[in-house]
Amino acid sequence: MTNNKYNWAILGTGKIASIFASDLKLLPNANLYAVGSRSIGLAKEFASKHVFQKAYGSYEELVADPAVDIVYVASPHVKHYGNSLLCLNNGKAVLCEKPVAMNEQQFRMMIDSAKKNKVFFMEALWTRFIPSFIKCKELIEEGAIGDIKLIESDFCFKAIYDIEGRLFNPLLGGGALLDIGIYPVFLALQLSGKPISIKAFALKADTGVDSACSMLFKHSDNALSVLFCSLINDGQTEAFIHGTEGTIHIKSMWHMSSVVDLIREGEETVHFQFIKPGIGYQYEATEVMKCLDEGKIESSIFSWQNSLDLISTLDAIRKEAGISYPKEIEKL
Amino acid sequence: MTNNKYNWAILGTGKIASIFASDLKLLPNANLYAVGSRSIGLAKEFASKHVFQKAYGSYEELVADPAVDIVYVASPHVKHYGNSLLCLNNGKAVLCEKPVAMNEQQFRMMIDSAKKNKVFFMEALWTRFIPSFIKCKELIEEGAIGDIKLIESDFCFKAIYDIEGRLFNPLLGGGALLDIGIYPVFLALQLSGKPISIKAFALKADTGVDSACSMLFKHSDNALSVLFCSLINDGQTEAFIHGTEGTIHIKSMWHMSSVVDLIREGEETVHFQFIKPGIGYQYEATEVMKCLDEGKIESSIFSWQNSLDLISTLDAIRKEAGISYPKEIEKL
Repeated sequence: MTNNKYNWAILGTGKIASIFASDLKLLPNANLYAVGSRSIGLAKEFASKHVFQKAYGSYEELVADPAVDIVYVASPHVKHYGNSLLCLNNGKAVLCEKPVAMNEQQFRMMIDSAKKNKVFFMEALWTRFIPSFIKCKELIEEGAIGDIKLIESDFCFKAIYDIEGRLFNPLLGGGALLDIGIYPVFLALQLSGKPISIKAFALKADTGVDSACSMLFKHSDNALSVLFCSLINDGQTEAFIHGTEGTIHIKSMWHMSSVVDLIREGEETVHFQFIKPGIGYQYEATEVMKCLDEGKIESSIFSWQNSLDLISTLDAIRKEAGISYPKEIEKL
Repeated sequence: MTNNKYNWAILGTGKIASIFASDLKLLPNANLYAVGSRSIGLAKEFASKHVFQKAYGSYEELVADPAVDIVYVASPHVKHYGNSLLCLNNGKAVLCEKPVAMNEQQFRMMIDSAKKNKVFFMEALWTRFIPSFIKCKELIEEGAIGDIKLIESDFCFKAIYDIEGRLFNPLLGGGALLDIGIYPVFLALQLSGKPISIKAFALKADTGVDSACSMLFKHSDNALSVLFCSLINDGQTEAFIHGTEGTIHIKSMWHMSSVVDLIREGEETVHFQFIKPGIGYQYEATEVMKCLDEGKIESSIFSWQNSLDLISTLDAIRKEAGISYPKEIEKL
C-alpha cells in the first residue's frame, strides 16, 4: 500500500483489460503499475501502450511482485477461479471480471480464500457503480414508480461467429448468458431480489454454447422479470422497470447508460443525464480503493452475497435452459 | 345478401362495439343495420348514436331478422361461444371478437357449426389486417431481416381495478392474457409458427384472474419469443422482430400501429408510415365482406387454423402459468 495511492496490476491483455486501463488513468490514486500475460510479448506491448511500469510474462511473476496492491483479473471466464485464487493466496486484492466464476462452487472457494488470506475480493460488476444505475436505484427507493411489477431488460449484439474465439468456445466458457445475459440477471436481482422461480430457454450454437437465452423470473415481492440476451442478433439493450406508479427507462446501452427517464402518467417525462468521463470502469475501481482505504475485504455495495445470488441464479438458469460446459472447466 | 352491400348487426353495446361501428361507417358496402343487446334501452341508445336502422332487446330477435347478413359479436369473452353459435345456427355470418372462445374445445364446436350451417365465421383478430402489420410480414418474407431469431412484444396498460368490471372478473373471463396478452401471442404465431415449447408465469389479482403474464416460446425454426402483458402497469406495447440481418420495430401501440421501422446495421433506418383512417377495425370488416362476395365461409388470411393455433396456445400458456376459470364459463 502506498499512502492511499494503489499500485494496480492487470492480469490479461484482452479488450476489456485495455478499456479498463484507459479508465483507470482517470483516477489520481491509481497507479498503473504492472501487467501480466502468459506471453511476455503481449505483456510488453500492453504495458507500452498504457504506460504500465512493469510487464510480466507469467501470472506467477506478477503476483510475486510485492509492490502490486490490486489485481484486476481480466482473463477469460474459465480462468477467473484459478487466477483469482492465485492472487488471493499471494495477498493481492482482487477485482475479478464477471462472471466471477463458472459456478457457485468455485465462487464459494474464492470467498473462503479471501477470508482466509484476509484480502479484498470483489466481482467487477461495474454497472452497479455507474451513476445512471445508482440514480435508478434511488428513484425506486424514493417510491418514484411505486411497487415494481415488471422488469424488462435485454443485452444483445450480433457477434462474429468464430469457433476459436472466446464468445462461442465452450472451453473458454463462451455463450450469451455468462457473457452478456449476466447483466439483465444482475438488474433483476438488484431491484427485486433473488427469484423464487426461474424459467428459461436457450438457442444453441454449433459449438454447443448458448447463442441466445430467454428468461422469466418470478420474484417473492409479486413482481416478474422478462429478460433475454443474444449473440446472433442485434437488440435494444435497454431496461424498463415498470411499477404501479410509473416506469424507469434506462436507455441503451443500459448497462453503461448516461440517460435515465422517469415516466409517470399525466406528468412530463423527467430525463436524468449523466456526464461520464471514460467508459465507466473507473467507478468500480474507485470502490475497490475506498474499501482498501477503510481496511475492508468486501464491498458493501456489491457484496459477496450479491455475487453469490448472481452466480447461483446463473447456475439455476443454465439448469433450466440446458446450458452446460465441459467438466474440466467447472472443476474446483 | 344485398347486391354486395351487406347489412351489419352488432351484438353487444360496449366500448369495442362502439369503436367498431365508427370504423364500419368508413366502408361504402357496409350498411349499419341492427344492434342487439339484452337491454332494449342500451340497444336503442347505441342505434341512435351510430345511426343503425334497428335496435333489438334480445340477441334472439336480432338473429331472427332475415335482413341481417353479418353479426359482429362484441360481447364479453365468456359469451363468444354461445353468442356465435346462436348466430351461426340462424345462418348469420359471424365476426367474433378475440379471444374467439374460452378454450379450444369451445372453438372446435364453433367451427363445426360454421361448417354444418355453411356460414362464414372469423375471429376478429383485426391486427392481422392492419397495413403496418401486413408490411411487417412482407418485409420478413422478402428477407429484409434474415432469419427471425427473437420476437419481443408486450401489451401493457394500468387498468382501473374494479372487481365488478370485465377486466378483473373471472366470471366474465377477465385477466391480462386473454384480453391483451393474446396480441403478442398472435404476433409470435404469425411470424414464427406455433411454439414447440412454452414457459410462463402469471401474477394474480385478488379476484384470481391474471393481472400480468410473462411468456417464453421456443419455435421449431430455432427462434425464441419473449412476450408479456400486464393490467397493473403501463408498458411500451411495442414489438421488435430481431433477425440475423436486422430488426423490425413496430412502434407503439404495435397492434394498431401506423409506423414500422426497418433497422439494418450500417444502413439508415427505413421508416414506413401508414395513413390509417379510423382506428383500424374497418380492415377486418372489409375482409369479411370480401369473403362473402367470393362465397367463402372461412378467410384464408386469418383462417380457422390460425384461430385454432391461437386458442390452443392460450390454453397451453394458461396451463403452464396456472391461469384457470370457473368451470361454468368453460363448458360447452
